[in-house]
Amino acid sequence: MTDRLNIGVLVSGSGSNLQAIMDGCTNDTIPGRVTVVVSNKDGVFALERARNAGLPAVVINHDRYGGREYFEKALAEVLEQHGVQLICLAGFMRILSPWFIRYFSGRILNIHPALLPAFPGLHVQKRALEMGVRFSGATVHFVDDGVDTGPIVIQAVVPILPDDDVDTLSARILVQEHRIYPLAVRWFAQKRLRLVNGKVQLDAGLEHEREMTLAADKAWIHPPAS
Amino acid sequence: MTDRLNIGVLVSGSGSNLQAIMDGCTNDTIPGRVTVVVSNKDGVFALERARNAGLPAVVINHDRYGGREYFEKALAEVLEQHGVQLICLAGFMRILSPWFIRYFSGRILNIHPALLPAFPGLHVQKRALEMGVRFSGATVHFVDDGVDTGPIVIQAVVPILPDDDVDTLSARILVQEHRIYPLAVRWFAQKRLRLVNGKVQLDAGLEHEREMTLAADKAWIHPPAS
Repeated sequence: MTDRLNIGVLVSGSGSNLQAIMDGCTNDTIPGRVTVVVSNKDGVFALERARNAGLPAVVINHDRYGGREYFEKALAEVLEQHGVQLICLAGFMRILSPWFIRYFSGRILNIHPALLPAFPGLHVQKRALEMGVRFSGATVHFVDDGVDTGPIVIQAVVPILPDDDVDTLSARILVQEHRIYPLAVRWFAQKRLRLVNGKVQLDAGLEHEREMTLAADKAWIHPPAS
Repeated sequence: MTDRLNIGVLVSGSGSNLQAIMDGCTNDTIPGRVTVVVSNKDGVFALERARNAGLPAVVINHDRYGGREYFEKALAEVLEQHGVQLICLAGFMRILSPWFIRYFSGRILNIHPALLPAFPGLHVQKRALEMGVRFSGATVHFVDDGVDTGPIVIQAVVPILPDDDVDTLSARILVQEHRIYPLAVRWFAQKRLRLVNGKVQLDAGLEHEREMTLAADKAWIHPPAS
């Protein structure tokens, strides 16, 4: 087990991306293990998912701390107690301070349900639908001081269909989140992915494979020709 | 010929999108004809393309007018003299005033080499490469008062490859521009595309076809799984 990456997952809600990461560890596509799940809210389903999997599920209620500094110190302590080497934000609804981000520099991933830099922040699908974009998607990125601005690891594109509402679009994007987040974690655990001087580095094998897989003239248009 | 849409194309440079639109009219995929090409700069290759095709090529040099108002009045006059029903901006490097945009309301299309709302404005490919996004693309949109903010008609997505520079990425996107711009013009000329209360409307047949063509679970991830 010593070669496996210790992963800490931060949640605030249902934790479907937590589930995808746990499943990846269980079925061995990710050479890692979730050593702790931390929620800033009690009673959320993500905690149940963790307990069902026999994993430590910790609540650190931000309301009970006299400021973000104390909340984050407690959070960092729990993560270190569980030997966490990679932090995955999975629907975690607190913004982390520059102190916390620097403390775990290059070791925090987040997933966002849009093709960043389009639609950072909240109410993402609603804004995409209102603007009438033809594609949206999901982005896994390293976390930096901004909101959804960090270095991009992997993205997935989906079409927006004429009858979409927030629910159908969110569901379509979520399917892709559950594909790409475990992939990014897998690469990090395999030491093929790292952050160097604020830039994402994927190792040569992967880069090469990527190039081979994607023909340079491949594209996707929407609406399709007719 | 009376059923054909009269198209005016505004250019400032080489005019490869002008060529794509002219070709679409010639090979009859667009039920329209380019009745005039206007450049705000003398000596650009787009003017030669127009003349080679036997089309009126007009230079309205913005430097020779005492302000944008006079420049745009002259521009509007030339377009009306040639019975223009749709204005296509094709690398036209002047920002049009709210007066001009309202005057030709719902009848001005533009193409932008990015997946709007990501990367509006200039130096698009450079900014995309610097940010490390995994996809970029092209967008045809109706023009409104903002810079590259208008209602979106059609988008194309392309991957960004590890060895890309501004030239290779620009070229990959340009191939898609030449696909989607004639498509949008075709739909407009067929009266299947219009702007209604600031929203893009595509007629039911097209919407249906779109839905049929794109499986709801279709997606594209990048880098690919490995």
